[in-house]
Amino acid sequence: MVDVSAKEVTRRRAVARAFVRMSAATAAAVAAGDAPKGDVLGVARIAGIQAAKQTGALIPLCHPLGLDHVDVRAELADGGVAIEAEASVEGRTGVEMEAMVAASVAALTIYDMVKGIERGVAIESVELVAKSGGRSGDWQRGAQ
Amino acid sequence: MVDVSAKEVTRRRAVARAFVRMSAATAAAVAAGDAPKGDVLGVARIAGIQAAKQTGALIPLCHPLGLDHVDVRAELADGGVAIEAEASVEGRTGVEMEAMVAASVAALTIYDMVKGIERGVAIESVELVAKSGGRSGDWQRGAQ
Amino acid sequence: MVDVSAKEVTRRRAVARAFVRMSAATAAAVAAGDAPKGDVLGVARIAGIQAAKQTGALIPLCHPLGLDHVDVRAELADGGVAIEAEASVEGRTGVEMEAMVAASVAALTIYDMVKGIERGVAIESVELVAKSGGRSGDWQRGAQ
Amino acid sequence: MVDVSAKEVTRRRAVARAFVRMSAATAAAVAAGDAPKGDVLGVARIAGIQAAKQTGALIPLCHPLGLDHVDVRAELADGGVAIEAEASVEGRTGVEMEAMVAASVAALTIYDMVKGIERGVAIESVELVAKSGGRSGDWQRGAQ
Amino acid sequence: MVDVSAKEVTRRRAVARAFVRMSAATAAAVAAGDAPKGDVLGVARIAGIQAAKQTGALIPLCHPLGLDHVDVRAELADGGVAIEAEASVEGRTGVEMEAMVAASVAALTIYDMVKGIERGVAIESVELVAKSGGRSGDWQRGAQ
Amino acid sequence: MVDVSAKEVTRRRAVARAFVRMSAATAAAVAAGDAPKGDVLGVARIAGIQAAKQTGALIPLCHPLGLDHVDVRAELADGGVAIEAEASVEGRTGVEMEAMVAASVAALTIYDMVKGIERGVAIESVELVAKSGGRSGDWQRGAQ
Repeated sequence: MVDVSAKEVTRRRAVARAFVRMSAATAAAVAAGDAPKGDVLGVARIAGIQAAKQTGALIPLCHPLGLDHVDVRAELADGGVAIEAEASVEGRTGVEMEAMVAASVAALTIYDMVKGIERGVAIESVELVAKSGGRSGDWQRGAQ
Repeated sequence: MVDVSAKEVTRRRAVARAFVRMSAATAAAVAAGDAPKGDVLGVARIAGIQAAKQTGALIPLCHPLGLDHVDVRAELADGGVAIEAEASVEGRTGVEMEAMVAASVAALTIYDMVKGIERGVAIESVELVAKSGGRSGDWQRGAQ
Repeated sequence: MVDVSAKEVTRRRAVARAFVRMSAATAAAVAAGDAPKGDVLGVARIAGIQAAKQTGALIPLCHPLGLDHVDVRAELADGGVAIEAEASVEGRTGVEMEAMVAASVAALTIYDMVKGIERGVAIESVELVAKSGGRSGDWQRGAQ
Repeated sequence: MVDVSAKEVTRRRAVARAFVRMSAATAAAVAAGDAPKGDVLGVARIAGIQAAKQTGALIPLCHPLGLDHVDVRAELADGGVAIEAEASVEGRTGVEMEAMVAASVAALTIYDMVKGIERGVAIESVELVAKSGGRSGDWQRGAQ
Repeated sequence: MVDVSAKEVTRRRAVARAFVRMSAATAAAVAAGDAPKGDVLGVARIAGIQAAKQTGALIPLCHPLGLDHVDVRAELADGGVAIEAEASVEGRTGVEMEAMVAASVAALTIYDMVKGIERGVAIESVELVAKSGGRSGDWQRGAQ
Repeated sequence: MVDVSAKEVTRRRAVARAFVRMSAATAAAVAAGDAPKGDVLGVARIAGIQAAKQTGALIPLCHPLGLDHVDVRAELADGGVAIEAEASVEGRTGVEMEAMVAASVAALTIYDMVKGIERGVAIESVELVAKSGGRSGDWQRGAQ
């Protein structure tokens, strides 16, 4: 684990996104609340938030850290479900992994809840969108 | 959670894969063991195995279950790191989610370990490859 | 921890309930989806299910065990929210604690989600309703 | 999860209580140390303290936070066992849920340890007694 | 993780022990219940039992498994506290690690509870005493 | 749990060590990477780091706390494997237990990975080496 003792305490924020590709029929079942295990988007949101809080336990070299905010949005989009997760903290280390873990576990939960009707559903991407705070400064996907 | 009381206890197995896309320079650092946080592929493998055991805690409607076997392989491939995870158990419910969680967390760990040198690295896919056992029988991606 | 090696593997099931007392105004906010943190009943249901899976970690002398089924229902009733949780497994030890933990954590989650509008909301009871299976046989509250 | 970034860091404290109703014979067994699983009050106290530290994992929209102090007292009272739990931290968000979770899990542990001699034992209440700190200021049950 | 699918389900049992060396004055404080954090041996026993249930989460290549029994005994002995932990299960893989983890965490808890009065207290050994069941058969320390 | 509200926030650091005694043949297998479960020292290091982050969950009266740094080194030495773990934080309470837990779980992981070739391997010691920070000041083993 990187030693962050000497780093400054700053406000740090990160946003990640994931996309779960599924057939129109499966997406329609999600939209209609007809998926076999219930409210897919609502459960995925909660699962993502709870997972963000376990980031330090899941990712071996991540620092355990408090979080001032985590939010996960999951919505039907063209071809599947789009997930966006954000996390923020005032601390010595960034929250990119918290946002990435939240987006991933929300996506995995969606898969779990629709795999009974379409086993081939795939998580198509999980990626950082933006981060701010810390010595390395701000970053935005596509803006380099 | 689906009631699996009435399901048969059978041998169940699942395989999932993930791909982490990175630049050739980052892949070379991984290959050379020069990534800032150490042995990327070895740590990712352990993280994936440990996460598979937390599947029931991470995915809200997953059953908690023992596992007879989990393995995660991570290797450099064209354009990044390819991960394959498999899980098996003798039980009343499948291990697709255990394999998917293992592959996802191995991929997230790789991201964590290289993001200091290339923040734009992305997890390009997480998907089930095959499953066997249980009432719904065998399934292979691409074989329907 | 009681040694259950010599006990028979049987189908075991337990049901517990809890009641969260709140004002009519707070109950109306829950019903309308106007509570500050969102879908109170849906989130409580998921929290209860996830907590049931952590029973062995929370209650010191409980056996860790798989679960074939857990379900939590939370609905508005006269004077507050009524919760019912059930759990079942085929094993050597009962699932009373899994049902009790699920009902408790669902009730605590409801408290968490409405305490911003009515801090005095109270969990009025958490109790076993029924159990079946195992050497001690069936039991029903009020039926002795 | 509510965004607490903009909240002030203040000393926050909360006290919760629970009551576990049981027959005089069961209470006598607890007092005499004759309950089947051992030192009921001592184990309940430890279980409550350990659970307080898991609050962020159990309650979906709770912030994960450090704790400067948690204590749980459990003592025989008229008609059962009375539990009081308190928690404090210097932070951006309150510790009501930590106190409530500690009281609940201590109560559940008592139930677990005496249910072999009296299955009908019930947790009769879990409620906040007082809180201090934070923007919403001090609160005491019955003092509004 | 070793694949245990093909192994036989047998009754498996393991016993481990640990020794925590301390001065006579510290041991006397433990015996008298005068240690700063309370009932040292009672808390250590519970900590050991709870840790045994987390073995699969702590030790990367351990299988997650149910447990039919765990017990931890901690008692004052010449020169410190002697701990003995045992675990048993009916399964495809042994419980040596569950017994070792229980003994270790009980020993660590003792250290935590007396370090305020004697920081130099040391865990002097943690070792397997005996195991039975499984293909490799019975084993006893010193009996080879 | 000791109330640390009134303690000063200072930089705190602790170092612990453990020793795992094994035969020359087993040590040679570890050195050669021939142990049945793979890269013993690498996996032990990760297990120790991850366990340090679980200290508050494992040790009942430990405060949950963030960590700015944890590191675990494991290397072949005369007669076995020597482990050194260090932890640091800026907080109100020390990190002795984090270092002790990291060293212990690294040692247990080594045992797990070689027990298939030498069941009698023993953890010979787990002890604090040094600590600094906090009201009680600096401490070094052997320096009193």
